[in-house]
Amino acid sequence: MKTGEDDHPAPAPMEGRGAYNRNSRVQAAGLAAAIPLFEKAARNCTLSDSSDPVVIADYGASEGRNSLAPIAAAIAILRQRIGTEREISIVHTDLPDSDFSALFRTLVGDPDSYLCGGENIYPSAVGRSFYEQILPSNSVTLGWSSWAVQWLSRMPARIPDQVHVSSSQDAVAHAAFAAQADYDWRMFLNQRSRELRVGGRLVVLTMALTWSGDFGYHAVLRALYGGLQDLAFKGEITAEELSRMVIPTVGRSRSDLIAPFGLGNRFADLAVEHAEVFLEADRIWQQYETDRDSKAYGARWAAFSRASVFPTLALALEPADDPSRVQNFIASAEAHMAARLAAAPEPCDIPLAKLVLAKLAT
Amino acid sequence: MKTGEDDHPAPAPMEGRGAYNRNSRVQAAGLAAAIPLFEKAARNCTLSDSSDPVVIADYGASEGRNSLAPIAAAIAILRQRIGTEREISIVHTDLPDSDFSALFRTLVGDPDSYLCGGENIYPSAVGRSFYEQILPSNSVTLGWSSWAVQWLSRMPARIPDQVHVSSSQDAVAHAAFAAQADYDWRMFLNQRSRELRVGGRLVVLTMALTWSGDFGYHAVLRALYGGLQDLAFKGEITAEELSRMVIPTVGRSRSDLIAPFGLGNRFADLAVEHAEVFLEADRIWQQYETDRDSKAYGARWAAFSRASVFPTLALALEPADDPSRVQNFIASAEAHMAARLAAAPEPCDIPLAKLVLAKLAT
Repeated sequence: MKTGEDDHPAPAPMEGRGAYNRNSRVQAAGLAAAIPLFEKAARNCTLSDSSDPVVIADYGASEGRNSLAPIAAAIAILRQRIGTEREISIVHTDLPDSDFSALFRTLVGDPDSYLCGGENIYPSAVGRSFYEQILPSNSVTLGWSSWAVQWLSRMPARIPDQVHVSSSQDAVAHAAFAAQADYDWRMFLNQRSRELRVGGRLVVLTMALTWSGDFGYHAVLRALYGGLQDLAFKGEITAEELSRMVIPTVGRSRSDLIAPFGLGNRFADLAVEHAEVFLEADRIWQQYETDRDSKAYGARWAAFSRASVFPTLALALEPADDPSRVQNFIASAEAHMAARLAAAPEPCDIPLAKLVLAKLAT
Repeated sequence: MKTGEDDHPAPAPMEGRGAYNRNSRVQAAGLAAAIPLFEKAARNCTLSDSSDPVVIADYGASEGRNSLAPIAAAIAILRQRIGTEREISIVHTDLPDSDFSALFRTLVGDPDSYLCGGENIYPSAVGRSFYEQILPSNSVTLGWSSWAVQWLSRMPARIPDQVHVSSSQDAVAHAAFAAQADYDWRMFLNQRSRELRVGGRLVVLTMALTWSGDFGYHAVLRALYGGLQDLAFKGEITAEELSRMVIPTVGRSRSDLIAPFGLGNRFADLAVEHAEVFLEADRIWQQYETDRDSKAYGARWAAFSRASVFPTLALALEPADDPSRVQNFIASAEAHMAARLAAAPEPCDIPLAKLVLAKLAT
């Protein structure tokens, strides 16, 4: 899909074929902090008296590995409330090009899957953008969304001097990203509110800004952009291609996240029960402190970036659909980024936000 | 997954990446005959008084193209009964390795999609075998399954002299396939019955046997096996690999299909409302009669076979996970089969069965 007047490409899917499952340990560590909130939501959510399945939605599931622990935790709490007989339906959503086969293989085959030992649980998937309503109205009792809503629905602008807006000095890009971030957050909340049952809860874990407005990841973003500049210098990509490369993600501050709700704490029949920005530990740096293996340090952050954002950057290649050029670009960008990081390891701040939203009666 | 004491591989998925969508016109023509039955089922099924979504399940959806017309037809009838506001949920199921991205792209992007112009319709997918219960109990109002239940849950036996049991002279293979076909059909019915609401309907279109027990496709199966023998003769596959190649599909006779229901017409709380074996026209032969293009005739049947069964045959390669060897095998098998068909075009019988089953009160 093409979007926007400047023909900025929309976000690409993750790399697929299990790459996200294998290289998302940063995300796994970060989301662990939100699991207690999800368990509390499972205790507090309103359950219908009917025998209908209880629906848990997982918005932005990717290949599923990182959803297993939170979903299993919620199921364990729900089972205390509804017993073992009542059916539970789990709906994992992501963009159409996400690797749903990897997701289903993970659900059926991973020893940590919530299907192992669990009875009367029915997983399914929806391959549509969560900026639309994609589940029936008033159907979801518990919603979970981890490392997903930082992805904007479209590229709001080019970033002339960087690939991520947080590193840019460009005022136009900052304004365009801020406006899109606000629009998309409200759209996300609106659609989820339609899907939630009254008394249902939605737990969100997302990239954030610190109180001073810092997105973090300084060393990683510097090495990423520096590596791309290396490729341009060597002629592996053109200056025009580099100028089109954009990562359409944003960190939102706590104020950004609660802004729609206003003084009355109500937006689209949702209320904020919890909203907190916290700093996740930099596990990749911690491992480096232990093993002092700078090559491994660089390789880990580069693999993280490859799995999460390189396919999106590759959309700027001309043509963007030459598989061997895309593969070469991704491999080369990863290698240059890893080398730059290995040359000068340093720790990163990882600001995250966790929220609990409750669906109110109209 | 490996199954069975003889370590026969389980069925492989279709080829994916849109190949099935592009090369399934034989299936599309055959299933058209079942759409009026599905429309009648949509008129006759019992609808709940609640405002819950009406659930339509599509068992064995592959990449979705062939599901658009029947689902749209059922939705049109349902809309006459429930109006435009009540939500409809469409669940497409197939094996985990099916190409669900192609499915979701088809649903969102195909001009014939039931989502085009349709409001309050929510598609989802389930990547699990329909020989298990994969949807909540008593949740499905209308079920559709086209060109799917001929696939057995496992390879029941080797076929020493052929790749399809219908061409084989081997009594052991015939007995093993017949037993598995009976077991799987009963298993399929049992699971669907759990998922259907009382008063719901399930429409099945599947490969069948004529009254005399003929599976049809004689010229196609002869060219397929002959082409594989060519590959073995040229050393592209070994005799051992050829001997392991099996297409785990069966045609069932009308008697086979209604056998579980017995004189009381009841099995697993299901009753047969309609059961009919019919001969579908051979569209590929009809086109040859018009254009007399024998190469195109051969290529069309070979593409049909490639999209539907070659990936399964490739599981017999040793090793089976060498992508370039698999690709070479598939391309070469397709070319040899096409050449053999082009040398001597002839029409095929295509026996199909269509059934309507109703869920009874317990």
